[in-house]
Amino acid sequence: MASYTAPLRDMRFLLNEFVDPERLRALPGCAEIGPDLVDPILDQAATLCSEVLFPINRSGDEEGCTLANGTVSTPAGFKEAWAQFRDGGWPSLACDPEYGGQGIPKSVGLLIEEMICSANMSFGMYPGLSHGAYSALLKHGTDELRATYLEKLVSGEWMGTMCLTEPQCGTDLGLIRTRAIPAEDGSFRITGNKIFISAGEHDLSENILHLVLAKLPDAPPGTRGISLFLVPKFLPTPDGRPGARNGVTCTGLEHKMGIKASATCALAFEDAQGWLVGRPHKGLSAMFTMMNEARLSVGVQGLGLAEVSYQNAVAYARERLQGRALNGSANTDKPADPILVHPDVRRMLLTMRAEIEGCRALAMWVSLEQDIATLHPDAATREAADDLVQLMTPIIKAYLTDVGWEATAMGMQVLGGHGYIRDWGMEQFVRDARIAQIYEGTNGIQALDLVGRKMGAHTGRYLRRFFHPVLAYIEAKSENEPLGEFILPLSKAFGRLQQATAELARRGFSDPFEAGAGASDYLKLFGLTALAYVWTRMAEIALQKPDDDFYRAKLATARFFMARILPRSTGHAAAVMAGGATLRAMEDAMF
Amino acid sequence: MASYTAPLRDMRFLLNEFVDPERLRALPGCAEIGPDLVDPILDQAATLCSEVLFPINRSGDEEGCTLANGTVSTPAGFKEAWAQFRDGGWPSLACDPEYGGQGIPKSVGLLIEEMICSANMSFGMYPGLSHGAYSALLKHGTDELRATYLEKLVSGEWMGTMCLTEPQCGTDLGLIRTRAIPAEDGSFRITGNKIFISAGEHDLSENILHLVLAKLPDAPPGTRGISLFLVPKFLPTPDGRPGARNGVTCTGLEHKMGIKASATCALAFEDAQGWLVGRPHKGLSAMFTMMNEARLSVGVQGLGLAEVSYQNAVAYARERLQGRALNGSANTDKPADPILVHPDVRRMLLTMRAEIEGCRALAMWVSLEQDIATLHPDAATREAADDLVQLMTPIIKAYLTDVGWEATAMGMQVLGGHGYIRDWGMEQFVRDARIAQIYEGTNGIQALDLVGRKMGAHTGRYLRRFFHPVLAYIEAKSENEPLGEFILPLSKAFGRLQQATAELARRGFSDPFEAGAGASDYLKLFGLTALAYVWTRMAEIALQKPDDDFYRAKLATARFFMARILPRSTGHAAAVMAGGATLRAMEDAMF
Repeated sequence: MASYTAPLRDMRFLLNEFVDPERLRALPGCAEIGPDLVDPILDQAATLCSEVLFPINRSGDEEGCTLANGTVSTPAGFKEAWAQFRDGGWPSLACDPEYGGQGIPKSVGLLIEEMICSANMSFGMYPGLSHGAYSALLKHGTDELRATYLEKLVSGEWMGTMCLTEPQCGTDLGLIRTRAIPAEDGSFRITGNKIFISAGEHDLSENILHLVLAKLPDAPPGTRGISLFLVPKFLPTPDGRPGARNGVTCTGLEHKMGIKASATCALAFEDAQGWLVGRPHKGLSAMFTMMNEARLSVGVQGLGLAEVSYQNAVAYARERLQGRALNGSANTDKPADPILVHPDVRRMLLTMRAEIEGCRALAMWVSLEQDIATLHPDAATREAADDLVQLMTPIIKAYLTDVGWEATAMGMQVLGGHGYIRDWGMEQFVRDARIAQIYEGTNGIQALDLVGRKMGAHTGRYLRRFFHPVLAYIEAKSENEPLGEFILPLSKAFGRLQQATAELARRGFSDPFEAGAGASDYLKLFGLTALAYVWTRMAEIALQKPDDDFYRAKLATARFFMARILPRSTGHAAAVMAGGATLRAMEDAMF
Repeated sequence: MASYTAPLRDMRFLLNEFVDPERLRALPGCAEIGPDLVDPILDQAATLCSEVLFPINRSGDEEGCTLANGTVSTPAGFKEAWAQFRDGGWPSLACDPEYGGQGIPKSVGLLIEEMICSANMSFGMYPGLSHGAYSALLKHGTDELRATYLEKLVSGEWMGTMCLTEPQCGTDLGLIRTRAIPAEDGSFRITGNKIFISAGEHDLSENILHLVLAKLPDAPPGTRGISLFLVPKFLPTPDGRPGARNGVTCTGLEHKMGIKASATCALAFEDAQGWLVGRPHKGLSAMFTMMNEARLSVGVQGLGLAEVSYQNAVAYARERLQGRALNGSANTDKPADPILVHPDVRRMLLTMRAEIEGCRALAMWVSLEQDIATLHPDAATREAADDLVQLMTPIIKAYLTDVGWEATAMGMQVLGGHGYIRDWGMEQFVRDARIAQIYEGTNGIQALDLVGRKMGAHTGRYLRRFFHPVLAYIEAKSENEPLGEFILPLSKAFGRLQQATAELARRGFSDPFEAGAGASDYLKLFGLTALAYVWTRMAEIALQKPDDDFYRAKLATARFFMARILPRSTGHAAAVMAGGATLRAMEDAMF
């Protein structure tokens, strides 16, 4: 009963007005990236998402995947949808033209990822994982591996996975037990058990390329002893077709809260033939070079689900007649007023909207920096951009997926009892959104990454990439009277963030437990402040266009954000400042 | 894989130390209510919940209810569990001895309700709805109806429902279309369609008594024209057995996000014979007299699910080895440390614990006042107690169910990827918890009840029942130095609440939209302040028992609450003070 329409107007605003489109076009290979090229791509993606992917979202959730005799079947319609997706060239969109890709920058690709997640997050898992495998091979594969496999991944003929987790280890990959034994032909024999492998086995493609973390016989202990291997399900024949079956089998399919149409597999590797990707024992760092990209994408999953939930909550609030407006009805010919008139319903919808549009702007800003970090010819410019991406990645992953969870739950609440009924589709968005807070590093791990790795990196250099431009912006606009209503709350939040940063750095320097104790609240405080910054910048643009509904809505939403959401930052700041003493005082046995 | 152990130690602390047990024992019929009587009841309830109800919680979720030929089957084991529950006399616990009840006060009964919801919320729905029907009949039924039906409900032989919602109306019951036509024998003929009827049809009992809201032919429009009727599934024979089938059939079973073992039915009434309960057109107020009780119970559902999630999250955090303690490991003989050492895991567990124990104390306080409001011989004492119950009921319903949702989601997060897998049971708690924020009046409706009805009632008399004792307590303890660390944050939060109350009352008086715009944040602020109050009182007790682990854990948790949770009140206060302007500014068409 739900529906989805891609928020193209907002996406174009971000691409063409919010970020400086010339910075993107100045990058090598991006000269053509402008509305003429991008608009039709966004339009086509929007149509695909509304007409092909969204219609199989509910049915996919109800049917789920099934495992029989080691073979996984995706729900009805997924094979056909994948064929259409593949034949439309969508897997190749953000890939290297050298291997058949279309070379569309990440900042554009991310908008399309959002649409796909809005329409069908489970479906989106399959190309998402494939793209991760593509990136790993592109960056770390030998010429031979790249020549053999990359075009297949780019075209979508073959698909890929990332095999990290094992029963005894998720976050702590140092505990991996999967072994890789060198063979005489230069390849390796991989043996071990992996769990939670998304797209680990399915019926969408004729071959599946597993990227597997394993330990070599001479591996140092812990995370410094992990290597990365490519293990195809079918060994390729010399002419590039799937040949002999390799020693990897799907031994189980998880039954999950959500993303039920995404096959989450247990895989057993038994003497499977694999090839080393990257250097021996350096598999984890090979994985991490593409982690930023993956974490941004996971953040956008939360954003996408929040968006589709918002759209359907608004539609319901316009149609559902219940109660009368508190200040008198303008609708007396009907038995009741649409619930959109009620202030608490508006509060929920505006909360969703302000978080969604703020998060989309934040993701756009950071993904443009990622394009610059990848493509810019100047090393110092690349470094500056990469610093910001490094800093903001855990914030985007955690903050946006928290928004995905909270906003989808709010969208459900707007529908009341109907939100709890599966047919309406609202509760599926909630269940699907929940995983994004967990995988690709739990949100708690993101917070630790922020305070433990990113905050202190290069004596605060990453931090300065955020603090300096924001401070410069606040100072530059201090005389801008119409913008004052935004600059004031922004600068207050910014001050709280500065204070919390200093305090956490001071305490965390001598005591890592203290850094960890404040990490999650610090990340929230940072995210809220970053949103206040992008909302102020959006408001600045909107203030100049008083006669257009789109910009008036932007301004109204910006004001709502400042008045009703940003104040949460005070509680998070206070929690950071309170320190870790109360976490320590509780003895283990007392829990 | 999950387990449940009733938190008996904490429950006894609340019953025997936190509230004054003499106030309960002084009530008529409660002279025996003390540890000698209550402890064995709590023990038996705990055993029943752990050994009978919890083991069919996961299987009930997977199997769900099924509808065939108008007959609903509950999942495997539910009939047997109900028989054991019934034969153990549990339905009669908090019922009037005149009809076979045991006369146990609500404040004790609520602890057992919590256990049942922890163990199996779906199961708990059946006796919960029955008890609602019992209360309605007890308070508003004619002597004849009471004589015919009450003993059957009390014994659990027959069960009951509450039929309010229709497709076109949930919150706004003025839109009800179900009609009641007077018959010549003094009964009525009921025709209409009801949806979302919990326990509307099932195989647990030989008869089901529906309490149905409907309109008489001469009904005034809106909520002033609704009457309440009793409509049994089978008309009773003169000797009290189920006789002829009445005109009510189950036409559908909802597929829901959670509480899947609770049958949520669509019921069609076609010329069904019914009897008026209470006065004509006064059905809604008859419903509302028992609404307080039902809303406290729904709050406790949230609490119960938070508790069972906490227990299993702690168990996992003790066992799961992953990573090393940030300040050095004490566990170097193992491959990794239990995740309980990690500060962010402790933050999640302590957040759950501080909310749970605070909410349990709050519910205990208010339910004791409810017993006093019902049983006390002195009218002024009853009124004073009822005022507080009226005020706190929407807060308990909404705040505790929000805690149910947030805490179960946090418990799931502690398990990482395993939390998302159905087998572990953690995600079911989340799905089950979600409905409690919606039914029995959405949490937004609770907030409107608080600011719209309760705040201004009798020129603030309800409010004073909270503000006066809390202020008196703060003043009385201002010289209590050891307690100062709690009194200080309590009095700050209390000051914020006073300020927000004054502002909301001032603005809401002239403009109801303004009251509605701040309602949800105000309710949160009120709840946090109330928790700060009960935590301070618990800390005061604990400070006197320095050598006991239970009290040391209480103190540690109280300190955590003040340092890490209570600061959220600043954000909610700021949102209230910001007013409704930003909710109004967004035009309807712009959403």
